[in-house]
Amino acid sequence: MKTRIYVNDVAVRDGFQIEKDFVPTETKVAMVDALSQTGLAKIEVASFVNPKLVPNMRDGEEVLARIQRQPGVCYTAIALNLRGVERAAALTARPDEINVVMSVSETHNRANANRTHAQSLAEFAEVMAIARKAGMRVNGSLSTSFGCPFEGLVAEDSVIGFVEKYLELGFDGVTLADTTGMANPKQVASLAGRVVKRFPRAEITLHFHNTRGMGLANVLAGLDAGVIRYDGSIAGLGGCPFAPGATGNICTEDLVNMLHDMGYDTGIDLEKLLACARRIPDIVHHDVPGQVLKSGKTLELRPVPQRLQT
Amino acid sequence: MKTRIYVNDVAVRDGFQIEKDFVPTETKVAMVDALSQTGLAKIEVASFVNPKLVPNMRDGEEVLARIQRQPGVCYTAIALNLRGVERAAALTARPDEINVVMSVSETHNRANANRTHAQSLAEFAEVMAIARKAGMRVNGSLSTSFGCPFEGLVAEDSVIGFVEKYLELGFDGVTLADTTGMANPKQVASLAGRVVKRFPRAEITLHFHNTRGMGLANVLAGLDAGVIRYDGSIAGLGGCPFAPGATGNICTEDLVNMLHDMGYDTGIDLEKLLACARRIPDIVHHDVPGQVLKSGKTLELRPVPQRLQT
Repeated sequence: MKTRIYVNDVAVRDGFQIEKDFVPTETKVAMVDALSQTGLAKIEVASFVNPKLVPNMRDGEEVLARIQRQPGVCYTAIALNLRGVERAAALTARPDEINVVMSVSETHNRANANRTHAQSLAEFAEVMAIARKAGMRVNGSLSTSFGCPFEGLVAEDSVIGFVEKYLELGFDGVTLADTTGMANPKQVASLAGRVVKRFPRAEITLHFHNTRGMGLANVLAGLDAGVIRYDGSIAGLGGCPFAPGATGNICTEDLVNMLHDMGYDTGIDLEKLLACARRIPDIVHHDVPGQVLKSGKTLELRPVPQRLQT
Repeated sequence: MKTRIYVNDVAVRDGFQIEKDFVPTETKVAMVDALSQTGLAKIEVASFVNPKLVPNMRDGEEVLARIQRQPGVCYTAIALNLRGVERAAALTARPDEINVVMSVSETHNRANANRTHAQSLAEFAEVMAIARKAGMRVNGSLSTSFGCPFEGLVAEDSVIGFVEKYLELGFDGVTLADTTGMANPKQVASLAGRVVKRFPRAEITLHFHNTRGMGLANVLAGLDAGVIRYDGSIAGLGGCPFAPGATGNICTEDLVNMLHDMGYDTGIDLEKLLACARRIPDIVHHDVPGQVLKSGKTLELRPVPQRLQT
């Protein structure tokens, strides 16, 4: 029996949100619909944050209303506070899951969510009741779990303390996010190993960025620690607001190609995923960091040179 | 005690060799001289192959004669056959090491070296005597150790058989090369693990390409298997002749940044290495895949936003 790995694509949210040009709603809907046919376990489709601060995410309600949902796929959306959760819960076309985000670094949480830890957690305490009433799952993300671009190193005990708080609130899953690509495999092995041992029944997801080229090495460390859920972004879309030109999220099709080569079962049709990724450069009007897009799948062989054919 | 990892930079050979425009000899010399100040264990500076087929390597003799060698750095050069070894041995300014190359896939060896395995090995049998007389170390590379773009999967037993043959010939070191970026971490763990167990005293180097984004994940698998020697190319220079646009060698400064973050000792000054890498785009007149060049080192922190400063 192959081990099953569950992949969540966040390109429509974490990727499109930093694009300067507005990605038309119908393009987002078409992309989610195509991704829905690939076998992905989860797709992050919207962000209920301040549309003035993140204008590309202003059409989340419409995207959720227009996508053709496939059974077995979890459609998730981000919120940074209670107001975002309430907006999602009030919809007829609600996300299946709301993904609330707080940063382990308080400076980053103030910069990103305009809240202290105490303020974020106080609001999150009310989230479960609203979400359950609306029939939504709740995932809690911990940004800067592996380092903060302002504060630097983050204490493992802080991360574990917040995982515990999230689970005590009743959250269905917890994501450890390497928001600006500061994680290294030794650190992932240590932190993910401790979290998996301490909370063996928790649904843990790892969210890595490839900012310093270590994205898939960090996945390998996560796999070794027993984590079976990963976020990625097709074509490697996304970026880091603090490092112009640096790549963002790990590339979903590169991740899936590696997992398949290693003998893992993802349930994903890599050809269909590559077809989605191939559309991205035309949508965002720039080059993308995905590698398998350029190289082809590992066992896509080349013809033997003519001069060697006998 | 931190584990020491030995890094060999191959940009001047594996990187420059595929550039269409000739890289001036003085530029190569200046780059090797700058790299010599970084703490690298080894630098691959020349290739004694057919200058008509690889015109950018036609000035190997002059490069070797003009570089300022630093004590403790091994200056190595490639040869595909006996004639190349003889050319290197005949020089006054010889390389410290000659690195002979054969592909594990016979089709690839015919395409790359115009020889069958039997022909390559027959010539290599004469290499040691020539090299010893000239005072050169001999390293043997096994291209396509993790897969061949023509033949596909390569049998582990074939690779191990050739490692044994190289060591029987008296070679000082053996490099397992993932020539076109087909390796995955599970395969590296298996093959490198077997080689290290079977030949515990052999000096084994791993040469990975990042063609499908798995380069540093493969290094992680190599480290876990006990391999302490790695090839890389500054700025991630290099490419894959069968996949236009795909990246080539793993990026040396991204590798070193990861190793330092994980607590390994490389003996390398990462700032000096980054300074070398920063020169590469101007030399090759195109963008390069290195990530740390764009993002900065992991703990290069950003200023706290003004609005949060009290």
